[in-house]
Amino acid sequence: MEPLTSAGHTLYFESGLVALKNLIESHQYSKVFVLTDEHTSEVCLPVFQSFLEDFQEFDLIETAAGEENKNIDFCIGIWKTLLDFEADRKSLMINLGGGVITDMGGFIASTYKRGIDFINVPTTLLSQVDASVGGKTGIDVDTVKNMVGTFTLPQMVFIETEFLKTLPPRELLSGFAEMIKHGLIADKAYYERLKTTDYLNPAAIDIYRSVEIKNEVVTIDPHEKNLRKILNFGHTIGHAVESYSLANDENPLTHGEAIAIGFVCEAALSIKNSTLTQPELKDISEYILSLYPKYHIRKESFDSLLELMKSDKKNEDGNILFSLLESTGKCTFNCRVATADILSSLEYYNSL
Amino acid sequence: MEPLTSAGHTLYFESGLVALKNLIESHQYSKVFVLTDEHTSEVCLPVFQSFLEDFQEFDLIETAAGEENKNIDFCIGIWKTLLDFEADRKSLMINLGGGVITDMGGFIASTYKRGIDFINVPTTLLSQVDASVGGKTGIDVDTVKNMVGTFTLPQMVFIETEFLKTLPPRELLSGFAEMIKHGLIADKAYYERLKTTDYLNPAAIDIYRSVEIKNEVVTIDPHEKNLRKILNFGHTIGHAVESYSLANDENPLTHGEAIAIGFVCEAALSIKNSTLTQPELKDISEYILSLYPKYHIRKESFDSLLELMKSDKKNEDGNILFSLLESTGKCTFNCRVATADILSSLEYYNSL
Repeated sequence: MEPLTSAGHTLYFESGLVALKNLIESHQYSKVFVLTDEHTSEVCLPVFQSFLEDFQEFDLIETAAGEENKNIDFCIGIWKTLLDFEADRKSLMINLGGGVITDMGGFIASTYKRGIDFINVPTTLLSQVDASVGGKTGIDVDTVKNMVGTFTLPQMVFIETEFLKTLPPRELLSGFAEMIKHGLIADKAYYERLKTTDYLNPAAIDIYRSVEIKNEVVTIDPHEKNLRKILNFGHTIGHAVESYSLANDENPLTHGEAIAIGFVCEAALSIKNSTLTQPELKDISEYILSLYPKYHIRKESFDSLLELMKSDKKNEDGNILFSLLESTGKCTFNCRVATADILSSLEYYNSL
Repeated sequence: MEPLTSAGHTLYFESGLVALKNLIESHQYSKVFVLTDEHTSEVCLPVFQSFLEDFQEFDLIETAAGEENKNIDFCIGIWKTLLDFEADRKSLMINLGGGVITDMGGFIASTYKRGIDFINVPTTLLSQVDASVGGKTGIDVDTVKNMVGTFTLPQMVFIETEFLKTLPPRELLSGFAEMIKHGLIADKAYYERLKTTDYLNPAAIDIYRSVEIKNEVVTIDPHEKNLRKILNFGHTIGHAVESYSLANDENPLTHGEAIAIGFVCEAALSIKNSTLTQPELKDISEYILSLYPKYHIRKESFDSLLELMKSDKKNEDGNILFSLLESTGKCTFNCRVATADILSSLEYYNSL
């Protein structure tokens, strides 16, 4: 499959990391670091090493797994580790893992000694279709997601479906939600094609299409001043539900499960506040519920959810701004919505 | 005095902050923050406010003064303060202070929610001629200076000699060292002119020339891959002496006093390892000693100084690399030097 070029760097698909081997051979890096978490280290590092054959000259930096570790304290620990290992400006960092690793590793690399080269090898479906493109790096401070970060491009990104074979079904379903989103906001035909796709075996061609859509958007608006906001469709409510669930549920929602709820709610908002039609909303709701387990958004959580939405990075001057569907496959942004409508959309989801 | 344009932003000299007033009026910033330290707040904030007349709609964030506070813990505190004050991506941060404030404030602004606009108003001679141009932001981690940072340009920089009237002589002398450096590495005539200048009353035209020289260098090599390294002349030894003095002396050297020692030592290194002549070395040594108090570099500190030099960011593959003078007004970089020569240069300074 042909590589995809994106503002200054290249994304390789199913390439067996050949370009990475070549880069390391031709470029005089003083040291190579691989950042991963303890879980990925176990299941993905052997695959990574089998691709790279006998290249073993790297230092492994292993973190604990999970979003709760994408924080500034872990960052400080890794910056100090790099210093202890005498990483200089000609060092290379390879981030091997899901979005937590590529977001945090990208932030660490983009700020260590004012920036060293880094490469992303996303190993989850979610990170392959979402975090792989757009140059966003970030960490959480306290409980605020991606409160601190940069826009910095990796040298290269490698997408290998071989890594996906290590994932449990729920993890695949989580990533699949972002693919559905790409169809909903930008390509109706792709959305229809996904409906006939088995999420347990995502095809490289579909991952490619998702990355291509995201790449088109972020190339036009790299710093999320305008168009890029459409990628947040489903995320204003979805992120709030996700944060609430994380803090309150015994078995919290995955990111994909939460934003799938967000798709339904924000599609419902799009009826009144944009031009989406009732049959389109029905179609989206039915498809989401056929894939994702039904969740009950508790009435006593509504106030907390509104509070969480207010801290969304898209907001301006204290107003909650939504990205809404004009139709299936077309999205607009910067939509102000009445609080009553937001609450109705949550109730609409509950009523399904 | 005409503004100086530098890759994507503008430096204004003696302009009375008119462009800042216009920017705030024309740009729809959701909030304006002024970051300063408690000392600057006392002596410079009134001057700043007198320039801005009745513009008072900003939130003041005040930190403790001093390099020891340019650290990640202060950063985290300020990120959280911005969040508490509901700073969003359309907020503006004005950094009012010396290099500690502009370096740290630039880092905070360039990473808060992946980057908000910021403006630098340097109030010390050192920050006006050095930190004002080049887009370096940074903070210290543990005792490692600027271990973490970004290359990010402010929207605008304002240089006003009015602020210099608040500075004690020793502070002016410290900044004057960077001006001497600009002459030594790039402009012999400017170096000769500085010799006849009273450092207690630096002229705007001289500050302008210093900024212009630095700007020429960083425009060619913004990310310090090559040419920009000449700006580190005197700093490899100077930084080491400065760190050592900070940790061991009751009344530690200022940055300028330390790098002035570095000029003499590295000029001595330039005799053997580059093409500087003996009369030029003599001239530089005499000029530095006529301005800066003589310091004794203790023999028992030599090993520590070498260790400190090894952690310099210019180094590659564990080699200490120097920027050395080819002649007065011309500098080269990436020079390897024998350890014995480094020690001899320290002894040369002591022998003066």
